[in-house]
Amino acid sequence: MGVVNRQLTLAHRPDGLVRPEDFALVEAPVPEPAEGEAVVRTEYLSIDPTVRTWISEARSYFPPVAIGEPVRCPGAGRVVASAVDAFAVGDPVYTLTGWQDYAVVRDDGFATRLPDDMALTAALGVLGNNGITAYVGMLDIGRPQEGETVVVSAAAGATGSVAGQLAKRAGARVVGIAGRPDKCAWVVDELGFDACVDHRAPDFVERLRAATPQRVDVYFDNVGGPVLDAVLKRLAGHARVVLCGAIAVYNAEHKPPGPANYLELITQRATMTGFNTFDHWDRFGEITDQLAGWLADGSLRSREHVLDGLERAPEALNMLFTGDNLGKLLVRVADDQSRPVA
Amino acid sequence: MGVVNRQLTLAHRPDGLVRPEDFALVEAPVPEPAEGEAVVRTEYLSIDPTVRTWISEARSYFPPVAIGEPVRCPGAGRVVASAVDAFAVGDPVYTLTGWQDYAVVRDDGFATRLPDDMALTAALGVLGNNGITAYVGMLDIGRPQEGETVVVSAAAGATGSVAGQLAKRAGARVVGIAGRPDKCAWVVDELGFDACVDHRAPDFVERLRAATPQRVDVYFDNVGGPVLDAVLKRLAGHARVVLCGAIAVYNAEHKPPGPANYLELITQRATMTGFNTFDHWDRFGEITDQLAGWLADGSLRSREHVLDGLERAPEALNMLFTGDNLGKLLVRVADDQSRPVA
Repeated sequence: MGVVNRQLTLAHRPDGLVRPEDFALVEAPVPEPAEGEAVVRTEYLSIDPTVRTWISEARSYFPPVAIGEPVRCPGAGRVVASAVDAFAVGDPVYTLTGWQDYAVVRDDGFATRLPDDMALTAALGVLGNNGITAYVGMLDIGRPQEGETVVVSAAAGATGSVAGQLAKRAGARVVGIAGRPDKCAWVVDELGFDACVDHRAPDFVERLRAATPQRVDVYFDNVGGPVLDAVLKRLAGHARVVLCGAIAVYNAEHKPPGPANYLELITQRATMTGFNTFDHWDRFGEITDQLAGWLADGSLRSREHVLDGLERAPEALNMLFTGDNLGKLLVRVADDQSRPVA
Repeated sequence: MGVVNRQLTLAHRPDGLVRPEDFALVEAPVPEPAEGEAVVRTEYLSIDPTVRTWISEARSYFPPVAIGEPVRCPGAGRVVASAVDAFAVGDPVYTLTGWQDYAVVRDDGFATRLPDDMALTAALGVLGNNGITAYVGMLDIGRPQEGETVVVSAAAGATGSVAGQLAKRAGARVVGIAGRPDKCAWVVDELGFDACVDHRAPDFVERLRAATPQRVDVYFDNVGGPVLDAVLKRLAGHARVVLCGAIAVYNAEHKPPGPANYLELITQRATMTGFNTFDHWDRFGEITDQLAGWLADGSLRSREHVLDGLERAPEALNMLFTGDNLGKLLVRVADDQSRPVA
């Protein structure tokens, strides 16, 4: 256990991509647990689009991160000191660690003791929020049927890659949308998608049309923007658009226009639905058990993209928006001495 | 029976509001029914936003009206000559009469023999497409519950006025949005809405907020544009947005931006659904019977705005977009000699 708690705090509220000077690296004492608290050593940070919204002034489930506060961020680590029954030293924990070496947790629902046999990195991705989001969004809301056409954007991302594989499992024809040829190749060759269209190609709209000859029954949208508009034009009758996120929107300095083609929802008697994974928290255990089984038997695949060092968290955050990651984006904050096998 | 069939044909494809020179008044012979046909004398035209989309090049259930063709338009009248068993001389009929004095119909599903005791004007509005659209959209898709807050735009229009009254009947608090103080007054004083907000008021957004202290559970949208964006910002958790139409969009020369606030659907776990009344044709009889009963007992009210003369159809069409109508907009093409009481 170190003697210093390094923290990356918010120095300026950023516009667009973050800059190094938007954050300050400060050193605080390692916290001591008060009665009812435990202290967690952060091992991995989960770099998610939500983190970008939390450092903006956008309305959210949480207030915006204040100037001078450590950046709010999900993470996982192990308990190094405890004054609460719920957590023993050595326990693996998922919580909002923030961008810092040590975090204080309580037995209040914001910290979850993880199973001993679950890799911390999986707990932050395929067996955590990303996997559960993909499951709820695709299976509960999208409800793909055998033979239907499903399109998933950010298909090589942590959530999209799982969502598409779940649609394949349901018997659908699955078309990914991703932003680089190697991402498209991974999605088709490794994950088994039927096709993948590069949204940076100049003829993206024509390629999307060619890849969806029966039009689109389910669209799982992670990006918003022009990609959403293009898919709206391809909807089939009674299509379901699942709104998972809008990475093309979160980072914009000015609020971009909405989907101009939304009236296709009328023409196609279609529906567009937003959801929040946390509304389904009572099913988290059941869902992650199922996902863990498929991961173990090799029928569900995931990939992690790990950057080393707390100080690289801002760089990692930008990669989500520039599209420079492939798979679940993580920052390793501390050596993981006892990493179990997924 | 006259000797001339006056027709208003499409001369130019209009941009924005129509101009007189976009149409030509031509005189054709009154058609004779061939075997399997009947001829209907047009008495009333139903002036609907759809007519504007039919004379544009927009994708629709029908091909665009061609230059030189009579403008496609729903209407009602009586049979004046028949060579088909389904229609006898004198029968009241609803069909796509078009903007002309006489229309040829067949027994093909595009013409409906109306009940003898139904006013032709009601058959075109509250007991026709508008009433059925309001019923399906509000009750099947919006599903307002007792005590919920329902907002209806174009609340003084043919569909919105019925939709709001149906929500009141379901026990909801109903807030209209309309474009003139006298429309708002009619909606509250005559139709029993709880409130109505004028979207032309400079402080519309604040007024809407004040009128929806419990936020918005169901939004029945007829207009799109900035009004839709404003209501999206007021959605309650698990809200249902029913997309009925987008009068603010149909007339635009360039496609306007979509609803920039659509991500509120995620924040509020809400849904936005389009529908088409014709998908529910098997229930038309049941629905209009119910509406007719409420109309007869005075618990459902409607109002008609009638312009006299076929040549006023273009002027009437523009009124939908300038907001100069109050209630169901109709053009009377011929004297209605035998109009029954609704």
